[in-house]
Amino acid sequence: MPRIPLRAALVALVLLTEAAALADEGMWTFDNPPTVQLQERYGFTVTPQWLQRLQLSCVRIGGGSGSFVSPDGLVLTNAHVAQGQQQKLSTAEHDYVEDGFLARTRAQELKCPDLEIVILQSYEDVTAQVLAALPTDASGLEAVAMREAASAAIAKSSQEATGLQSDIVMLYGGGEYWLYRYRSYTDVRLVFAPEAKAAYFGGDDDNFTYPRHDLDLALFRVYENGRPLASPAWLPLHPEGAGDGDLVFVPGHPGSTERLLTLAQLQVRRDHTFPRSEKFLDEAIAALREYAARGPEQSRQAGGLLNGLSNGRKSRQGEYRGLLDPAVWARKEAEEAEFRSRIAADAQLRERFGQAWPLIEQAEQARLSRLGELEGRTLPRFGLARTAQGLVRFVAEVQKPDGERLEGYHEAQLRRQRFRLLSPAPVYPELEQYLLELSLRRLATDLEPGDPFRSAVLADRDPAARAAELMAGTRLADPAVRQALLDGGPAAIAASTDPLIVMARELDPLLRNQEAWLREHVDGPARAGGELLGAARFAVYGKQAAPDATFTLRLSYGQVKGYPSNGTRAPAFTTFHGLVDRALSFRQQEPYDLSHRFGVRMRKLDLATPLNFVSTCDITGGNSGSPVVDREGRLVGLVFDGNIESLAGNFVYDETANRAVSVHAAAIALALRDIYDAGHLLQEMQRR
Amino acid sequence: MPRIPLRAALVALVLLTEAAALADEGMWTFDNPPTVQLQERYGFTVTPQWLQRLQLSCVRIGGGSGSFVSPDGLVLTNAHVAQGQQQKLSTAEHDYVEDGFLARTRAQELKCPDLEIVILQSYEDVTAQVLAALPTDASGLEAVAMREAASAAIAKSSQEATGLQSDIVMLYGGGEYWLYRYRSYTDVRLVFAPEAKAAYFGGDDDNFTYPRHDLDLALFRVYENGRPLASPAWLPLHPEGAGDGDLVFVPGHPGSTERLLTLAQLQVRRDHTFPRSEKFLDEAIAALREYAARGPEQSRQAGGLLNGLSNGRKSRQGEYRGLLDPAVWARKEAEEAEFRSRIAADAQLRERFGQAWPLIEQAEQARLSRLGELEGRTLPRFGLARTAQGLVRFVAEVQKPDGERLEGYHEAQLRRQRFRLLSPAPVYPELEQYLLELSLRRLATDLEPGDPFRSAVLADRDPAARAAELMAGTRLADPAVRQALLDGGPAAIAASTDPLIVMARELDPLLRNQEAWLREHVDGPARAGGELLGAARFAVYGKQAAPDATFTLRLSYGQVKGYPSNGTRAPAFTTFHGLVDRALSFRQQEPYDLSHRFGVRMRKLDLATPLNFVSTCDITGGNSGSPVVDREGRLVGLVFDGNIESLAGNFVYDETANRAVSVHAAAIALALRDIYDAGHLLQEMQRR
Repeated sequence: MPRIPLRAALVALVLLTEAAALADEGMWTFDNPPTVQLQERYGFTVTPQWLQRLQLSCVRIGGGSGSFVSPDGLVLTNAHVAQGQQQKLSTAEHDYVEDGFLARTRAQELKCPDLEIVILQSYEDVTAQVLAALPTDASGLEAVAMREAASAAIAKSSQEATGLQSDIVMLYGGGEYWLYRYRSYTDVRLVFAPEAKAAYFGGDDDNFTYPRHDLDLALFRVYENGRPLASPAWLPLHPEGAGDGDLVFVPGHPGSTERLLTLAQLQVRRDHTFPRSEKFLDEAIAALREYAARGPEQSRQAGGLLNGLSNGRKSRQGEYRGLLDPAVWARKEAEEAEFRSRIAADAQLRERFGQAWPLIEQAEQARLSRLGELEGRTLPRFGLARTAQGLVRFVAEVQKPDGERLEGYHEAQLRRQRFRLLSPAPVYPELEQYLLELSLRRLATDLEPGDPFRSAVLADRDPAARAAELMAGTRLADPAVRQALLDGGPAAIAASTDPLIVMARELDPLLRNQEAWLREHVDGPARAGGELLGAARFAVYGKQAAPDATFTLRLSYGQVKGYPSNGTRAPAFTTFHGLVDRALSFRQQEPYDLSHRFGVRMRKLDLATPLNFVSTCDITGGNSGSPVVDREGRLVGLVFDGNIESLAGNFVYDETANRAVSVHAAAIALALRDIYDAGHLLQEMQRR
Repeated sequence: MPRIPLRAALVALVLLTEAAALADEGMWTFDNPPTVQLQERYGFTVTPQWLQRLQLSCVRIGGGSGSFVSPDGLVLTNAHVAQGQQQKLSTAEHDYVEDGFLARTRAQELKCPDLEIVILQSYEDVTAQVLAALPTDASGLEAVAMREAASAAIAKSSQEATGLQSDIVMLYGGGEYWLYRYRSYTDVRLVFAPEAKAAYFGGDDDNFTYPRHDLDLALFRVYENGRPLASPAWLPLHPEGAGDGDLVFVPGHPGSTERLLTLAQLQVRRDHTFPRSEKFLDEAIAALREYAARGPEQSRQAGGLLNGLSNGRKSRQGEYRGLLDPAVWARKEAEEAEFRSRIAADAQLRERFGQAWPLIEQAEQARLSRLGELEGRTLPRFGLARTAQGLVRFVAEVQKPDGERLEGYHEAQLRRQRFRLLSPAPVYPELEQYLLELSLRRLATDLEPGDPFRSAVLADRDPAARAAELMAGTRLADPAVRQALLDGGPAAIAASTDPLIVMARELDPLLRNQEAWLREHVDGPARAGGELLGAARFAVYGKQAAPDATFTLRLSYGQVKGYPSNGTRAPAFTTFHGLVDRALSFRQQEPYDLSHRFGVRMRKLDLATPLNFVSTCDITGGNSGSPVVDREGRLVGLVFDGNIESLAGNFVYDETANRAVSVHAAAIALALRDIYDAGHLLQEMQRR
């Protein structure tokens, strides 16, 4: 087998490390922006005013990001972030996902059933307060519990004092704790989304790749008291857009990265978690495709979930490919070796932090020992069966003092739970029953007869009959029924004869048992080890590197720049000519068929207009819908994807080929003006 | 480090092997076409008439392939096959490479200085005759020498009897010997070649990749007795071209493959030969770029060589990448293990062939022992210094009886040697001196003072002075001087005071010594082992697989088909929209700038026309310029490249992503009619 001589490998590592120090790496918190890097590499000076304007222009929306793009509360994000709401607004008669949507007047804007938009108002370092709550001899599980209780109390009192949604955010794996305060809006209306063929040209095939040709954008408007919100700040569209080599910024809400995991944790992901989840996702996608094949209405119902799962599978595959890449692995090994040698070299550090790695290894061993069984004992993470579990759990938890509740049910977290549990979004009983039966079948196969979880779920019936019975009997599709259960509290839950509630009641103690075991043997030691590591890393490296992503506001920066790809170069831009080429190259076979609208307008369009572009900005899932901003704070693009090489970015950033993929501002302008006859929106976006 | 569990690896191998049995693999000789595969996989029946028409339509031209495309001797090949002649026809005033060329009348067609076109007339199995010459106890070096002598005698007598160029071709590494007879034409005239920017859009970056956007075509006409040749057969252009999924054929002259090398040989290539040649090519390319930067005329002179070296480097890199790929290596290991176990399992086979592997290993060890020294003792493979060596060697060899001459100097091979040695192509003294000095510098560094080779070459001068002196004194640029030396024979060579001849005379005995050592210790055992292996493979597997390529006429077949590429799919076709997109995507920065002519004509072109396409046909270097032919024998495309994934094809064919890249017939028609105003040629190509 080919071997790299040791010396060559070491030289390569040194080069990698040096390159990394200069790279456009990091999703930076706004309290610690990369001022030095920006000054030295790009001669750009970050000012507090510039930063604050970005902060107030940015929103977290659904599972993604967005930004205000007009003074009147207009919010730009991706079509794929909007898709869930488009689907919930659709009916068998109007399919707003497939056909898109345009409100020609404000009166036509469609109120979304359960979409929340939040804006970060302030952030405050509360590390000292969180740690002050700890007796000096507290350790492990106990310490974790005390920190959680202290965090919950800080969040609760902030929320009471300010009326703002208050979250405690753990950064650097426990090196710092921050209090983030958000303003929240739930009257959000759909203004515009293109038809699916334009938003997702190339479908799952082209997802997470580049060159790319998508108009993956959507517009919402935030309302307050029935009137458009006066945006706290906004980013005017710069229709010339980003130029080759330009410095650009991506503010947004990256969901999570795992760049600080230890080798022991990475190994379990590589050898166990990833192969298992790949299998699970493959099965679920195959089943949903079967369901969608039943007819157009079924296809519409399953669409969003199917896209989400396909997206998830491809993203996981990319991460998995990263972990299987010897170069990635060598870099992780070198990083850990360097870190451990720094700790080992100092008696005090060794004493304080040396236990971290053994603790984490112990947690991973425990996880492995029951992996199959734990995965077998799950119900679908979707639908009314899940809602029923949520209702039972909610009502029980809120009875306790705040500090003793499970994570997710602290006082400051309840508003969001309620918003979700009471969503008026449509329920599709046929799809629900299909998915429920599917998960019952898996459970019947995976768990031994006599397993209490199995018994509680199946109740001695065969999966098909049991799923039918559960769905026939439940009334949880009605939000008023859910409201009554929440209002009625434990008594109402105890008295309910709704079969999904009855099942959830039986399952809850079993799940609590299992969760307690996990907390004690897996999450506890892992988190304790993780916090030690976080503190150790902070002690050794300080804030030289950005913390892992936490679905909170971050700033990435980089250059508009092509990259080496498969023997040649991928360009910085694509154009509409490329869209037409790729469609014709595949003879317009799905997913490479042009939309009817595009086909009609095509001859009048300037096909030389830039369509998508790439930059070295370091992003991850959750950044979808992030604005791309130039030095002057103008909107020059809209992030919607990362290339396939960026997926290993979950573990390690490599500037050579890791790229954020965005819609170009010129394409947004062209689309609104010349394809969708939405010149009024374009005008609104160009107001300053 | 990631490990593949053994069982999974075995399963994967079995699948690979099964897939290979069904794959579109092989460059098949015309005596043994893949009739079974074509019948079973594509329902296509090969007839002798169909085959013979292809055979007579195909030509070997320069280092590539081509085909007759009209009744009047018109030959289609690649621009990059024509480039050498275009350059030789150019002057400081007319650059036919950069600007292209079109003869509007036959009178304007330009006679090429040293281009030969040959057509295979017949082939005949002479294995029995070659082997009959061997006493049963002959072995190793002795056997090889006797086979060479027997082969030379057969070729000579065929040539005398028929007047046709006669070659003995060893197939299956020695399993069979064939006599191939060619008709040869040397009055070949340039008819058309597009400007370089259109022929080579994307340059070295896009070379060996796909999607691709090149008009890499050229037309020559063969003349006989001053009149256009009546083509023996021809392929009419089918302007609709190849369709997605179509079965297509590629007849042509693939140069060489190394699919039958043993692991020991592959290992030496991977660990020594490839890294060394990469370094050599890098240096040579850098030096030529420096030369080209001296001015436009220097750039023109160096152009062809520079393109050739860049092409060679990228191709070698691709092959090297293949050898470094664990999957490729695993497949080679499995193949060798299977083969060796078949031999080991049969006492008779073991007895006859068991020595093959040790012989080859011994040869590789010997090669390694003097690798650096042997590589140091070389002069440039280019220019008058090389011609001088050829003249000295030629004159000496032809004195001997045919059977005792060195390979390459047998009677049947002399015509080609003379054609090359007497080429009237222009000589560029400045470039020659520059390259000579470069190679003298390398030699001065690589060889110890006192090394006789070094002394003979440098003659105690410094490299610059010596190169200047050699080039100032030589008169070999004049073909008449070379003719006189050939005519004068040994006496003329001995009497010559031309400094290049004097140097070549001194070097010849040293080189002969070195070659003798190589023949005895490296090539001898390697060839003896190779012949054993060839015979063994033939005994075990028969003619189930095609033999390695030998720059003789072969037939490949396959489907027009896209492939998985870097996370998504590469389409079967590209269009002119893709060309425009890629140019604009790179803001027309070189090598992505559109030609002036294309820019002017662009608005009137149907950009939706297919431009390039890929097929699974198994090709390699030498196939450049091969026609792509449909079931009806019509010309539907023109091979000009392989994708980056095809380069590992030197060692192993993998249908998943190994693709031949061709110019689409529709693009040829569009280009001739609408870009180059050469409708008369298009008309000629559509005659039936």
